[in-house]
Amino acid sequence: MTEKSTDATRRLFSRRAFTTTAATAAAVAPFAVASQVTAAAADKTADKAADKTAGTPGDVRRITLYADKLPDGQLGYGLEPGKPTIPGPLIEMIEGETLEIEFVNNTDVTASLHVHGVDYEWDSDGTRMNNSVVQPGGRYVYTWRTHAQIDRPDGTFAPGSAGYWHYHDHVVGTDHGTGGILRGLYGPLVVRRTGDILPDKTFTVVFNDLKTNNLAQAPDFTAELGERVEFVVIAHGNFFHTFHLHGHRWADNRTGMLEDLEDQSRIIDTKTTGPAESFGFQVIAGERVGPGKWMYHCHVQSYSDAGMAGTFTVTGASEKVPLTVTAASRCVGTSVYVAVTAVNHGDVPATVTLTTPYGSTTVANVAPGKQAYQSFNTRAKQIGAGKVTVTGTATIGGKKVTSTYETDYSAISCG
Amino acid sequence: MTEKSTDATRRLFSRRAFTTTAATAAAVAPFAVASQVTAAAADKTADKAADKTAGTPGDVRRITLYADKLPDGQLGYGLEPGKPTIPGPLIEMIEGETLEIEFVNNTDVTASLHVHGVDYEWDSDGTRMNNSVVQPGGRYVYTWRTHAQIDRPDGTFAPGSAGYWHYHDHVVGTDHGTGGILRGLYGPLVVRRTGDILPDKTFTVVFNDLKTNNLAQAPDFTAELGERVEFVVIAHGNFFHTFHLHGHRWADNRTGMLEDLEDQSRIIDTKTTGPAESFGFQVIAGERVGPGKWMYHCHVQSYSDAGMAGTFTVTGASEKVPLTVTAASRCVGTSVYVAVTAVNHGDVPATVTLTTPYGSTTVANVAPGKQAYQSFNTRAKQIGAGKVTVTGTATIGGKKVTSTYETDYSAISCG
Amino acid sequence: MTEKSTDATRRLFSRRAFTTTAATAAAVAPFAVASQVTAAAADKTADKAADKTAGTPGDVRRITLYADKLPDGQLGYGLEPGKPTIPGPLIEMIEGETLEIEFVNNTDVTASLHVHGVDYEWDSDGTRMNNSVVQPGGRYVYTWRTHAQIDRPDGTFAPGSAGYWHYHDHVVGTDHGTGGILRGLYGPLVVRRTGDILPDKTFTVVFNDLKTNNLAQAPDFTAELGERVEFVVIAHGNFFHTFHLHGHRWADNRTGMLEDLEDQSRIIDTKTTGPAESFGFQVIAGERVGPGKWMYHCHVQSYSDAGMAGTFTVTGASEKVPLTVTAASRCVGTSVYVAVTAVNHGDVPATVTLTTPYGSTTVANVAPGKQAYQSFNTRAKQIGAGKVTVTGTATIGGKKVTSTYETDYSAISCG
Repeated sequence: MTEKSTDATRRLFSRRAFTTTAATAAAVAPFAVASQVTAAAADKTADKAADKTAGTPGDVRRITLYADKLPDGQLGYGLEPGKPTIPGPLIEMIEGETLEIEFVNNTDVTASLHVHGVDYEWDSDGTRMNNSVVQPGGRYVYTWRTHAQIDRPDGTFAPGSAGYWHYHDHVVGTDHGTGGILRGLYGPLVVRRTGDILPDKTFTVVFNDLKTNNLAQAPDFTAELGERVEFVVIAHGNFFHTFHLHGHRWADNRTGMLEDLEDQSRIIDTKTTGPAESFGFQVIAGERVGPGKWMYHCHVQSYSDAGMAGTFTVTGASEKVPLTVTAASRCVGTSVYVAVTAVNHGDVPATVTLTTPYGSTTVANVAPGKQAYQSFNTRAKQIGAGKVTVTGTATIGGKKVTSTYETDYSAISCG
Repeated sequence: MTEKSTDATRRLFSRRAFTTTAATAAAVAPFAVASQVTAAAADKTADKAADKTAGTPGDVRRITLYADKLPDGQLGYGLEPGKPTIPGPLIEMIEGETLEIEFVNNTDVTASLHVHGVDYEWDSDGTRMNNSVVQPGGRYVYTWRTHAQIDRPDGTFAPGSAGYWHYHDHVVGTDHGTGGILRGLYGPLVVRRTGDILPDKTFTVVFNDLKTNNLAQAPDFTAELGERVEFVVIAHGNFFHTFHLHGHRWADNRTGMLEDLEDQSRIIDTKTTGPAESFGFQVIAGERVGPGKWMYHCHVQSYSDAGMAGTFTVTGASEKVPLTVTAASRCVGTSVYVAVTAVNHGDVPATVTLTTPYGSTTVANVAPGKQAYQSFNTRAKQIGAGKVTVTGTATIGGKKVTSTYETDYSAISCG
Repeated sequence: MTEKSTDATRRLFSRRAFTTTAATAAAVAPFAVASQVTAAAADKTADKAADKTAGTPGDVRRITLYADKLPDGQLGYGLEPGKPTIPGPLIEMIEGETLEIEFVNNTDVTASLHVHGVDYEWDSDGTRMNNSVVQPGGRYVYTWRTHAQIDRPDGTFAPGSAGYWHYHDHVVGTDHGTGGILRGLYGPLVVRRTGDILPDKTFTVVFNDLKTNNLAQAPDFTAELGERVEFVVIAHGNFFHTFHLHGHRWADNRTGMLEDLEDQSRIIDTKTTGPAESFGFQVIAGERVGPGKWMYHCHVQSYSDAGMAGTFTVTGASEKVPLTVTAASRCVGTSVYVAVTAVNHGDVPATVTLTTPYGSTTVANVAPGKQAYQSFNTRAKQIGAGKVTVTGTATIGGKKVTSTYETDYSAISCG
């Protein structure tokens, strides 16, 4: 139990961004290091720049997980003694791996580790029923196994372990861990299939009764435009919630992503989640909607009003003058007009030039949120379809930037 | 803002049957008419007789949406000033289209328009966070974009916008629009994929706390036998509901319909729906079950008892004498009998003739809900499989109608 | 109504194990026996040893279902007069079959039979609306039809009737049967598709307000390791629940099983279920996790604490000495060690021998839950991958049993 951590395992727990609220979950010495193969797999998992999909699993990894009391009396799991977080650390596995977790209970109550989704023998159940719980000051090894999807001899499939799962205490307060969960003993577990796309960032949202990650005010998250962001959503306690994310949506299936054009999964942006349910999905931050402070919240109205709402800020896109350009041909009496509108969605004023076959206009200093508009009289009763060009020029970050947009208008007859 | 509506856009909002409760949502002048291409697409959408699937999208359509106070103090969205409805008008889009909505706030409180599922830039969010809300007497253009499913460069798919979505206020009462939603500011949005089957009728059911479409008594709907009926189900407020429909069921996927024999979606007739969740499905009215006053209701017992139950009346089938015919061979001692039963499911008495190889019987004036029955003694110890024929004759709508049914009985040995 | 039951129909209702709580649901004389074809189909369904998939349907089957009062004032459905059970008997159909149910109301209140999922004409609705309810002492025939998936003329599919459904009263207490459901008038209905895999056992769990199968303490279930166990989960009343099963999980689709590798259904072990929702799934008892007393419970914390938790005991595996064996190569300074661990998961002590290319050790009397451990010094700076062998010997059920396990360790270099 005295071996030191290696860089490889440290990386697996530290390189990926994940959300902590009460403290920063830091990488810490697992009590034993698995084989070189495992370390290489871990390395591969962590090194997303080189390979953005989940690699092949190693065989056995070992970590130590501590339960500690926070200064305010709450409880949390952590990878280092005295550094609990709520939620506990994000644990990631690849289908086929085994994780041996030495659980060290540094709290003053009997606590345990119960996991959803993965394979474990009964003595890793974390329940009082077979005394797989840990007294204050004690330690116990829980073994979690995972497997890829396999054919059974009877022609059916045993589904693989991949999924958005979670772990929690099952003994503090009541035999169902009601007190432990209430006080913060829970965390996310993601099991990936070899080949699954890895996210750039993972955010964990736990609706626990009327708190989010045990906070009265839900935490805020930030990503850059275009980053692949993974949300892991878990509910705990006594209430049902509807998780809603503004401006982004996902498929209601295993990964939250469509695998092919035949997948008939419902696309949603709001999902009911009851106690101990969990789901996850990946979105491209700001995809087709751009930067913004996008709300996420429980959509039960009184819960969101009470603080179960945070922001998912998508930053970036500073290299562009963001205009929304529309063009339409329309009739005013029997004359055709081509109307062009360019809305400035940037943070700074822009100079905008609208160009059509029937004339051109430049509007200086179009303020953020305002638009340049011109309806060009074609002096014709009918026109064919055509194109308008709009350029926007602005000073962004001290640099002069010009962006060009084109859009179509339709043929029309005002006879 | 003074252009008049064209017939094409008027049709898009008026031809399709949709449900309104407080008033009839009428077609009204959008503030600008889109291009001919759009109008043609709109026309195609509307003209279901000619083409029953969603057409190809136009580019940009513009409408005006008004928020108004109802005489009883509730609030509603409408397509015409002073004519709000609860729910607001059914808005339909085809993947690829853009909808520019000039929102006019004719109420005495700051209100907004927040939408689920479609693409919009942050300034169309409808939240106080970026002041995309509208003061009393003000107007604001919200832009909703949609897109078809597309491949991303990384090999994943961005799902298309198709779905059963909805829109609602996000600012009245609280920063989450709790007061606006409570008072009626919500409505359905359906985004279709090109090629999606169009319904004959769309009914919207919104469970809003303990009211349905803000009514203490849930509204009733009617369709003819065989019509393709679409339900859009939305929940709002603070409670969870289970929507149940008698005698009809659907697939728990994007469209509510199975696309192929491989689709393993669960077939359901009851579905949990929490605040701001929405789903939709299509059924063939009375398919395999016939006409009737079929209940729909929230299946939370105390909620249904309190009024969250309405009827879906399926009318029609007047061209037929509706009989349910069964035949069975059975043993009475060592003799085989063939028993034939014909139940009259019509609204009027029928004369029924039961014919078997072992004899025939006519029963006159079989009342609605009653049956003609005869057990024919074959005078044999065993028989092979065979067929019975039953005819029913009745006067329906002043016209004499005769219907014929056949059914099989099985071989049997009573030795 | 005096015909006696045949063995074939008796078998259909009695051979399959199902869960009863208030009494044992026994096979009882249906009021009429269907044709030989049906009987053969029934036989085929029942005879799982010969054919473990659902057979082809017969045409019409007839049974009698009784509603009776239990001694404690609760109500239940049963297949024999005076022998009600809560839940009512498990009714199974194969897509294509028709079931005629003569319902006999032996209670002192007007009661009915309302079913979910299958086809029935309006007069089999079981509601007061059309008086398809039954007064005390009365009888009424409800007809349930089912169908396989079929193509509609318009190119869409009508989904088949297969599913995990249920039936319940719709008139006792209120027009929605709130009193009847509360007092126990409900039961499970499983409709199978021809070819569906049949389970060895079916367990029904009904979360009815804060009771399970109307019991304050949820019932316990037992299966042998490797048995195919089907759970049918139904909710009733006013509350929402999350059904959770320890150590086992299922696909969130029609059957709870994946049909192929393309199926992107979410794999879950916890599912929200609201009033009148139902779902089912099959698991292999103890698959990849072994025997144990596995909890199942509603995961709403206060509900599980209040008694909505039972056990699913998986017995067996007595022919084996159950060891969990792990091996790892690791560095101690610059020397490679191969560490081998074997945990005894059995109920009795075992003698364990650990064998590696670098030596062998035997540990006698390894107690249940304890482990044999040895770290073998290879006296090398690097080694290639290799294999360890572990044997366990124990006396199980008076018989000496020896089991052998192999596992791999990885290549490693400690230079």
